[in-house]
Amino acid sequence: MSEIRYQYDVVVVGAGHAGTEAALAAARLGAKTALLTTNLDTVAQMSCNPAIGGIAKGQIVREIDAMGGVMGQAIDATGIQFRLLNRRKGPAMHSPRAQADKKAYQWWVKLAVEDQPNLDLRQEIVSDLLTEDVDGKQQITGVSVHGGVIFSASRVVLTTGTFLSAIMHVGETKTPGGRGGEGTSSGISAALKRLGFRLDRFKTGTPARLNYNSIDFSKTELQPGDDDPQPFSFLTGELTGEQMPCHITHTNQKVHDLIRANLHRAPMYSGEIESRGPRYCPSIEDKVVRFADKDGHQLFLEPEGHHTREVYVNGISTSLPRDVQDEMFKLIPGLEKAQIMRYGYAVEYDYCPPDQLWPSLQTKEVTGLYFAGQINGTTGYEEAGAQGLMAGINAALEGRGEEPLVLGREQAYIGVLIDDLVTCGVDEPYRMFTSRAEHRLMLRQDNADRRLTALAQQRGLITPDRWQSFSAKVEQIDQAMATLSSTRHQGTLLSDLVRRPDSRWEQICELAPSLKEITSEAALQVTYDLRYEGYVARQQIEVERQKRLSHKRIPESFDFTRLTQMRNEAREKLVRIRPTTVAQAERISGITPSDIALLLVYLDGRMAPKSS
Amino acid sequence: MSEIRYQYDVVVVGAGHAGTEAALAAARLGAKTALLTTNLDTVAQMSCNPAIGGIAKGQIVREIDAMGGVMGQAIDATGIQFRLLNRRKGPAMHSPRAQADKKAYQWWVKLAVEDQPNLDLRQEIVSDLLTEDVDGKQQITGVSVHGGVIFSASRVVLTTGTFLSAIMHVGETKTPGGRGGEGTSSGISAALKRLGFRLDRFKTGTPARLNYNSIDFSKTELQPGDDDPQPFSFLTGELTGEQMPCHITHTNQKVHDLIRANLHRAPMYSGEIESRGPRYCPSIEDKVVRFADKDGHQLFLEPEGHHTREVYVNGISTSLPRDVQDEMFKLIPGLEKAQIMRYGYAVEYDYCPPDQLWPSLQTKEVTGLYFAGQINGTTGYEEAGAQGLMAGINAALEGRGEEPLVLGREQAYIGVLIDDLVTCGVDEPYRMFTSRAEHRLMLRQDNADRRLTALAQQRGLITPDRWQSFSAKVEQIDQAMATLSSTRHQGTLLSDLVRRPDSRWEQICELAPSLKEITSEAALQVTYDLRYEGYVARQQIEVERQKRLSHKRIPESFDFTRLTQMRNEAREKLVRIRPTTVAQAERISGITPSDIALLLVYLDGRMAPKSS
Repeated sequence: MSEIRYQYDVVVVGAGHAGTEAALAAARLGAKTALLTTNLDTVAQMSCNPAIGGIAKGQIVREIDAMGGVMGQAIDATGIQFRLLNRRKGPAMHSPRAQADKKAYQWWVKLAVEDQPNLDLRQEIVSDLLTEDVDGKQQITGVSVHGGVIFSASRVVLTTGTFLSAIMHVGETKTPGGRGGEGTSSGISAALKRLGFRLDRFKTGTPARLNYNSIDFSKTELQPGDDDPQPFSFLTGELTGEQMPCHITHTNQKVHDLIRANLHRAPMYSGEIESRGPRYCPSIEDKVVRFADKDGHQLFLEPEGHHTREVYVNGISTSLPRDVQDEMFKLIPGLEKAQIMRYGYAVEYDYCPPDQLWPSLQTKEVTGLYFAGQINGTTGYEEAGAQGLMAGINAALEGRGEEPLVLGREQAYIGVLIDDLVTCGVDEPYRMFTSRAEHRLMLRQDNADRRLTALAQQRGLITPDRWQSFSAKVEQIDQAMATLSSTRHQGTLLSDLVRRPDSRWEQICELAPSLKEITSEAALQVTYDLRYEGYVARQQIEVERQKRLSHKRIPESFDFTRLTQMRNEAREKLVRIRPTTVAQAERISGITPSDIALLLVYLDGRMAPKSS
Repeated sequence: MSEIRYQYDVVVVGAGHAGTEAALAAARLGAKTALLTTNLDTVAQMSCNPAIGGIAKGQIVREIDAMGGVMGQAIDATGIQFRLLNRRKGPAMHSPRAQADKKAYQWWVKLAVEDQPNLDLRQEIVSDLLTEDVDGKQQITGVSVHGGVIFSASRVVLTTGTFLSAIMHVGETKTPGGRGGEGTSSGISAALKRLGFRLDRFKTGTPARLNYNSIDFSKTELQPGDDDPQPFSFLTGELTGEQMPCHITHTNQKVHDLIRANLHRAPMYSGEIESRGPRYCPSIEDKVVRFADKDGHQLFLEPEGHHTREVYVNGISTSLPRDVQDEMFKLIPGLEKAQIMRYGYAVEYDYCPPDQLWPSLQTKEVTGLYFAGQINGTTGYEEAGAQGLMAGINAALEGRGEEPLVLGREQAYIGVLIDDLVTCGVDEPYRMFTSRAEHRLMLRQDNADRRLTALAQQRGLITPDRWQSFSAKVEQIDQAMATLSSTRHQGTLLSDLVRRPDSRWEQICELAPSLKEITSEAALQVTYDLRYEGYVARQQIEVERQKRLSHKRIPESFDFTRLTQMRNEAREKLVRIRPTTVAQAERISGITPSDIALLLVYLDGRMAPKSS
């Protein structure tokens, strides 16, 4: 057989949410890029819930968009229900979320990939990673694909999702495969082991899909979208698509009794699955065990699009056997006669503990090899997309000898995400929370462009259109700020008037008519900047203080169980390990700077641990 | 493990073009029906060309539609280019064809399935067929699916496509699987063998898909759709969707030289694949060998939809190795820089020679088991859909003790198709041609409803809407016919005036103003009926004559090679076997009544075999 060899600058393996952003970013930076997927019909497929965004995740999507990624535009174009979560809280907590037309989303992203210059999307099964020894260190040289064909490249990004040596579980039944109806990839797992990587196992799960026509919605509660839907992308104007409502129902004691009676048949509890699943997206059997006192759990019935009757049942992910799943739905209001189209299942897969990565997402072990998405032990489309974007950018930059782009924790949730991964590692699937970001007042969804677009523009990631509209916005903000800081009304600076929570922009405009020309978007930025200036400054001081205090001792008598305001995950770890200094606490895998900040507050006595 | 058993009247295995029509038809007839597919995301997927209809196939789609099937409505709703082929020939040759938005087509059909009462669509992997012995004969009792779950039913329809023990070939590389990126099913093959079925192997192939943006269309010829696109379904009004053009290019001597130089690496020629492929949809390596004197072959560049850049290259199906595919395109005008997104491949799969079936498509071996589509050795979405429809209808009817619906050869192409299959068997993948139908002047696309809708209505397959619009049309035709047969103009019956090829309906209307109320559709039927009455009658006489003459002797000296007007397939078989009587010729597998009619014409000396 004659050897076939294709030459690329960057090869991206896997075309999910990480892989597509990685390939698009690398190609945008001028790298000749190949994106390889086992099946072109599953590009950017939403394997689990048909939704983008949510708390902290919505902020990440805005950051991806601000740096030229596609996730925001894709969901704007194909969303079927948009909601800005936490509207009543401060702007740092505002989090956009949208239900997607699942298939439309997928084809939108695929088309963006197909239309991207410098980028070849190909259906290929990657069977091995190729390296050579350079001064005693492995350097990636490409990948081989089924058929003995080689894609040569000095930079390779792996985004393998749940497909590495994957096993799906439904009750007692095991099937090899990373997603319902699909296969698994074992060649890459073997290659990674051979190259010296530590691999570990995680599990995740997905709920059943029901036929819309078989649901009695009169027994459920309507959850409509926002009346004034807000887009994700800084490029999107008005959202005009037709919105579809979700519906809410609940589990109850009967359901919980049924689950408890069958726990021994759930792979997680029968010992079949020993790997950890995502704590904050627990299976229903997990919820029933961990929250034994709860009478019921909310379930969201999420339509999967305009042209399908499949409904995703958010909140009831499970690996219980099929007969239990059948019986479970019969006990839930509205779902008594629901027809199951796909059963829920759990999937176990290999990931590479991410302390094996540099902050650029390049691996320490193999020069030129990058990991992004679930292979790094994360969960979530947004977390995956963010890592893909950064891995793609850095593969392109480092491939031509430039410095990688590494975002700071104070610059972006993406910075927090990657710093957490490479510094602390993971011991359960990692998802983003606002509480992980100690600078969260600065890392708002509304200002993602002001935090990141210029940075991305310097690297060549930003289209002229986006840059022009961004520059115009910044100019307006600067102008408005200048006017407000130099104009007085009855002796008070207008900027101080804006700071007052009850002031209205229209009133301010009457006092300085030139402000009337400012867009509402820019006006909002100015208002937020002024009002949150103080809080942000105080947060900054706290972060600095924390750095200084990291050697502080923790008394042996300190009762970690009383850190009730801390994330469960962090608290449980502290309880288990009982660190004796703050520095030791910092080194615990999964403990973030944000957790440490809270610990310091307690240690200081500024907040008394609750007595039981 | 507790046993899980679901009870249905009819279970359909596989949700391609055969399976979806089968399940919909059974459910429409009131049978509680389950449709099982390994992946809900591939329901009604177009595995090969993104098109529906064509010569003889278009007629089949009209027949499926006339009996309440969905294929016609699906393509009307999602077509991107409509053409009525053979417009300049007589109406019996008019054949509708349309390019599909491949993914939109798929979701349209899936939605129709999801919305069908009595029908449950489920993602399941069927692992075995279950039977019991009833008076010494096997009777189907259901299927078992992965996870030890049983779907009980006294009627099971198998529509396994190319997935039975499937192997894909690209040059020297073999991969188990029935379609790019998907798996194979071995459990069903084993079950069929155990139950006593003869299995054999066929192969088929598909060409590469290219990225639209990488094609230089200036070097190709434009092929637009019709200005007045005609729908497939009798229910569709006007077609309003945006049309997309196709483009035409050609292979050339350089391409053929390249292929010839690499023939030893094509599995078909290297001996890797011994099974037969579809003669009338040959691979490019086949064409180069069989038509060695041709300078070039036409290639149609068919877009796969509005929201994708994948382009199907119709005419260059191949299993040549990837390096040859790469080089091949570089030599073709317009494709010099084409980016291959998926490579062409051949696939080998099991089918059950269809002489093991009753005309109802129930198997002779196992009561209650039906086969439809590629498992019967056919090729083509339309042929599959037609068999699926009939198998689904008959599973429902026979399941409740009623007579099956069997269409005659004079009633429908579907009748010809199934009669050919069960009477003659196949020895290569079977596709429909007008030449297979000895009654082809009657089996027109325009009158499919008049041939079949009433028949289907009697069985309960027709919705009230369709029945009402059909009845109104028939009433108009009857009215018009009565007027024409009873009104004279200058002594001539109007019906005789209509028969004249140069008469125009508008002129006739002036002579009998009540005709002005007749719709143009009904007027066309009346016109065709009158003008073709004579031809149809003569064809009928010929068919009768043929039946009488089947014992006629064929002289030993008869030179079959000179039957130049006969289908190649039929001629080759006659040359090989040299039958000595017409009756013997009739019994040869693959020789149809239509071939016999032509043979008789030659034997009679009514048509002289061409001398070489």
